[in-house]
Amino acid sequence: MQDTLIIDGKAYNSRLLVGTGKYQDFQQTQDAIQASGAEIVTLAVRRTNLGQHPDEPNLLDILPPSQYTLLPNTAGCYNAKDAVRTCLLARELLDGHDLVKLEVLGDEETLYPNITETLIAAKELVSEGFKVMVYTSDDPIVARQLEDLGCVAIMPLGSLIGSGLGILNPYNLQLIVQNAQVPVIVDAGVGTASDAAVAMELGCDGVLMNTAIAHAQRPILMAQAMAKAVEAGRQAFLAGRMPKRQFASPSSPMDGRINI
Amino acid sequence: MQDTLIIDGKAYNSRLLVGTGKYQDFQQTQDAIQASGAEIVTLAVRRTNLGQHPDEPNLLDILPPSQYTLLPNTAGCYNAKDAVRTCLLARELLDGHDLVKLEVLGDEETLYPNITETLIAAKELVSEGFKVMVYTSDDPIVARQLEDLGCVAIMPLGSLIGSGLGILNPYNLQLIVQNAQVPVIVDAGVGTASDAAVAMELGCDGVLMNTAIAHAQRPILMAQAMAKAVEAGRQAFLAGRMPKRQFASPSSPMDGRINI
Amino acid sequence: MQDTLIIDGKAYNSRLLVGTGKYQDFQQTQDAIQASGAEIVTLAVRRTNLGQHPDEPNLLDILPPSQYTLLPNTAGCYNAKDAVRTCLLARELLDGHDLVKLEVLGDEETLYPNITETLIAAKELVSEGFKVMVYTSDDPIVARQLEDLGCVAIMPLGSLIGSGLGILNPYNLQLIVQNAQVPVIVDAGVGTASDAAVAMELGCDGVLMNTAIAHAQRPILMAQAMAKAVEAGRQAFLAGRMPKRQFASPSSPMDGRINI
Amino acid sequence: MQDTLIIDGKAYNSRLLVGTGKYQDFQQTQDAIQASGAEIVTLAVRRTNLGQHPDEPNLLDILPPSQYTLLPNTAGCYNAKDAVRTCLLARELLDGHDLVKLEVLGDEETLYPNITETLIAAKELVSEGFKVMVYTSDDPIVARQLEDLGCVAIMPLGSLIGSGLGILNPYNLQLIVQNAQVPVIVDAGVGTASDAAVAMELGCDGVLMNTAIAHAQRPILMAQAMAKAVEAGRQAFLAGRMPKRQFASPSSPMDGRINI
Repeated sequence: MQDTLIIDGKAYNSRLLVGTGKYQDFQQTQDAIQASGAEIVTLAVRRTNLGQHPDEPNLLDILPPSQYTLLPNTAGCYNAKDAVRTCLLARELLDGHDLVKLEVLGDEETLYPNITETLIAAKELVSEGFKVMVYTSDDPIVARQLEDLGCVAIMPLGSLIGSGLGILNPYNLQLIVQNAQVPVIVDAGVGTASDAAVAMELGCDGVLMNTAIAHAQRPILMAQAMAKAVEAGRQAFLAGRMPKRQFASPSSPMDGRINI
Repeated sequence: MQDTLIIDGKAYNSRLLVGTGKYQDFQQTQDAIQASGAEIVTLAVRRTNLGQHPDEPNLLDILPPSQYTLLPNTAGCYNAKDAVRTCLLARELLDGHDLVKLEVLGDEETLYPNITETLIAAKELVSEGFKVMVYTSDDPIVARQLEDLGCVAIMPLGSLIGSGLGILNPYNLQLIVQNAQVPVIVDAGVGTASDAAVAMELGCDGVLMNTAIAHAQRPILMAQAMAKAVEAGRQAFLAGRMPKRQFASPSSPMDGRINI
Repeated sequence: MQDTLIIDGKAYNSRLLVGTGKYQDFQQTQDAIQASGAEIVTLAVRRTNLGQHPDEPNLLDILPPSQYTLLPNTAGCYNAKDAVRTCLLARELLDGHDLVKLEVLGDEETLYPNITETLIAAKELVSEGFKVMVYTSDDPIVARQLEDLGCVAIMPLGSLIGSGLGILNPYNLQLIVQNAQVPVIVDAGVGTASDAAVAMELGCDGVLMNTAIAHAQRPILMAQAMAKAVEAGRQAFLAGRMPKRQFASPSSPMDGRINI
Repeated sequence: MQDTLIIDGKAYNSRLLVGTGKYQDFQQTQDAIQASGAEIVTLAVRRTNLGQHPDEPNLLDILPPSQYTLLPNTAGCYNAKDAVRTCLLARELLDGHDLVKLEVLGDEETLYPNITETLIAAKELVSEGFKVMVYTSDDPIVARQLEDLGCVAIMPLGSLIGSGLGILNPYNLQLIVQNAQVPVIVDAGVGTASDAAVAMELGCDGVLMNTAIAHAQRPILMAQAMAKAVEAGRQAFLAGRMPKRQFASPSSPMDGRINI
């Protein structure tokens, strides 16, 4: 089965995208990312040395752009202006690389996206020629607005960044998926393998995660688990699951009369 | 990583066990089972030709005992006596094969296990020299009683047979797993890939399913999905998931004060 | 609306049954029970002075049998023999009172019912002339067996005693309710008001609780909340809730095709 | 206990707000609203005769402003301009009445709020002197922005209007409640009594509903159930629920190590 994820015209075999933070060291980062099979790797421009500090270890040494699609992100930005500036910096450091993950956060405690500022930044970045993958809430109307602005991927949260609570509102995610023409990638909230599978079974095109791997007790093994979970969920979605029933009897499929 | 499932002294690489019913034809049965990677295959003695009817197609032609561990089951039995008799018949048809899956059902509508009769049959079968894998409810006390009687695997339901509702009571399953010295295999209720992953993440040793594969729109693809989901869930369990938190902040792990 | 709960031929206006343990003192016990509006009050024969110790305070002084239907229970019994003996003692202490709540527990850690011993004790108690309300798991087949033995009320758990986790498996409870001719009263697991409402909305005839009231920060206020929650859930059940829909549009009721 | 809901300086004894649509006739509308005990009643200016059509029945005849606080709403508006115009019309028809419920919807299928337009309309209405209660998503950052603009109550959805799916994301609602200085009233999604109790147990200040009452099989009885459920949930919140535990044992409260 040929089933690739296409973002901004490029095809990927893996539907698992991963972050680079929170690992013990560069070795563990590299090993976990390798084990995950991810082809797209996101990095926080404000926290990562991409060449700004020539004397320090450079993350790109272990994640060569020849091997990975780099996805610089604007983590730590709380308004549109900072986010745009961060993307411009990344493009400069990465020789014109224009694929970015936009995130504009609402506050430091929840890291929930600030939608108003996100919309402003997305518009600005698109007009500046960036290919914008955008972190957002699970608001289906905002998702459509971001797509209408020209974003190349919509990245709704499953639950708060770093919470590991999984997909709290599958209904909203499904609305976003049903309306979208660009890839929908769940970003934030996945805590374990089944969460990733659930996201894919809803019809999402991919999953991005960081903490669930980096803060597992055995990150490399969890990275392998996540790779399989994303594939399992994708195949289950394509395979078309059996209907849910209250009983085995084929005459009683679940319907609106049920109280549960 | 060497991580095998050991049942009655025999090691298996796959933790996915599958049924043989509800497929369109023998070809689809064979293809789906192959795609699932299952090494243990269960068959309903009362509904399957294992040689009782020499003129009809024999399921063993496509599931040779040289390749698969056969697990004859007592589906369709509603009391201990019928179940014991069915196991004796299976042992005769299969040249002394003594590994069986006991199920004694409570009624035809729900197919919920009849625990009282199951306990009686389990005792009798063990004394007759059978190796009994036993379908049961998610009652942790009954699970322990069945293990004390000498059953070689405990097979609690996730939800009703054929319902596809997944794992309705993860707390009970976890209690069973924590107390058991023999393998615990979720039997019944799995509807899609994430359900299988959830079962494994709870620490179960395996998952048995039939309808979720056979009644998917594309059974072969779903069989592949399930194989990966079981592996993903197992690895995630071994990897030790990140803690759940309400916020990303490391100072606020979820605890008893939370209302949700 | 005349809508009474009838147990063993006697009609009750309140569908909330309460325990008497875990309070700070007799005064709080009395105040909370009064606030709950309960007419049936259960007491652990093995832990409560019902007259066995003439020199100590007697719970019956604050819960006079003229005002409450007393429901002596067998909490702390782990086999049928002890449970039967405890009921005989209660009958003696209470001048022939024959309404009892049978509970035979599986172990001290989970307090999950031991179904095998419960069935034995129920049979014995019925033959001894007791009116048996019986604590049990949410196993619908066992529930029917207990009813067939002559129990006057079936009391399945929502979740473990003292856990406050609410109704973990509403499907099983609904099966029990649909099959029962005697009252079904959820016993154990309720943690807050909405849990009690959920139990009633499933069609249960009543709810019994203790810890949820006694271990609330303000027990008297919680008792009032529970009284209203049970009434609200009962009325909602009788009123017939609106169907669940994915959208407001009347043309799209939820059905088996939905993935969530 | 004196525990009133204060909106725009006025105290209410009831925390249940109700709509006026979807009933069979004016008589049923009146009876249900009376049974609900609601003191604040919302009406869709675009669909209701508030005097625009002098020859037709006027809803205000059965809902006299002397008895109820009227809450004209902008249902059916899909942009800020229409919403503002609708409020201006309502103020004219209702002799200067300036308390309004703002809702700007995203599309006709989901009726999900359009946050961008809602923010614009809220700002405009506040500057025009309106007291704005505002329907919104469960986005905690947007909720704060709306409060910062001067709205007098925040009204997040529990789930889609008319869906009856209950509170899908209690975490987000709790974030909104924790941050808000003005009342938070769940608007949309409640399907049955326990849903209303859940909303209140999260700490919300009130619940607004329409379909759950109007489309119950017996609307008057459901209105009574909802009145009690809202009170029960409020009291349970104030009473402080018991902690959730996996077991009854006081030494094992639920914490971050648990997998479920």
